[in-house]
Amino acid sequence: MTTDAKASARERLLEAAATLTYRDGVGIGVDALCKAAGVSKRSMYQLFESKGELLAASLEERASAFVATLLPAADDGRSPRERIMHVFDQLTSQAGAPDFQGCRYLAVQIELKDQSHPASRVAHRVKANLTAFFRAEAEQGDAGDPDLLARQLTLVFDGASARAGIKADTPTGLIAPTVTVLLDAAGMR
Amino acid sequence: MTTDAKASARERLLEAAATLTYRDGVGIGVDALCKAAGVSKRSMYQLFESKGELLAASLEERASAFVATLLPAADDGRSPRERIMHVFDQLTSQAGAPDFQGCRYLAVQIELKDQSHPASRVAHRVKANLTAFFRAEAEQGDAGDPDLLARQLTLVFDGASARAGIKADTPTGLIAPTVTVLLDAAGMR
Repeated sequence: MTTDAKASARERLLEAAATLTYRDGVGIGVDALCKAAGVSKRSMYQLFESKGELLAASLEERASAFVATLLPAADDGRSPRERIMHVFDQLTSQAGAPDFQGCRYLAVQIELKDQSHPASRVAHRVKANLTAFFRAEAEQGDAGDPDLLARQLTLVFDGASARAGIKADTPTGLIAPTVTVLLDAAGMR
Repeated sequence: MTTDAKASARERLLEAAATLTYRDGVGIGVDALCKAAGVSKRSMYQLFESKGELLAASLEERASAFVATLLPAADDGRSPRERIMHVFDQLTSQAGAPDFQGCRYLAVQIELKDQSHPASRVAHRVKANLTAFFRAEAEQGDAGDPDLLARQLTLVFDGASARAGIKADTPTGLIAPTVTVLLDAAGMR
């Protein structure tokens, strides 16, 4: 393959892995992934050591979009409280989409049941960054216990998106009041 | 098979399905299930129409233990608030076990990604019963909005158990303060 063809095959595999794993789960086969990407298995194994490595790379590549979609711009002039609410407003909006299946970074860890799997490690790091964002804002907003508030907000993020993903609940009228109660209790500005 | 042998094969299959699916995920093969249960595939298909039906039956059978372990006895004399806290104390205690992988009824729905699957339907019903318990207690305790409180408590249940299951957080120092804030905000007795 030329360098361009390699880049393109790599991108198509990453896209197929992200899309099909989200839709069908981590059990999706290598054949299905290669077929969806229009890439031979031989080429796939030239680009990625294993399906696990491909999955990890696809989660890694999605991480910047995950952050960009959820998190507010740095120094956007809003209060820490508003910046936290921004994340949950984005989640509420995403969770309304018919193909929403919850947070992909939570799902992959639940499905793999192996925290040492390369994809679990990526997912864990991406979500730890979300908790770190909450913690920094909590501190900026003079929360009584910034650590606790950050853990609570991540819990709400995961619980609400999981329940919306399985269609057990809708985020509307649930996420915002829950987050508000927690921010109030923490004394957040 | 005699009636006794059938009952025993059925029980072993249900046990194997519950244990292996929880540990390894819904992708576990029929061969592995039959091997663990010491039952031939032919016998399995005499007892269950499909792996999906076996999985659904195993979740159904576990439901009474799930309820008995989590929920307080009816009319135990405690306040609705204490009765709700009992559920979360039980969850906190369960989540401390090294083999805890989160709530099996949430995991199966996330993994199957198909809410019409027989096992998803069972799981959905079991969790809806938990929400109904919360709602009844919220009403008894004069919560301002019993529906909202019941949804919030189920969200915390799922979020906290999922995060403990993937070892992203521990329930200690997280579940109790979060539930307390929500009960207080709802004006629960």
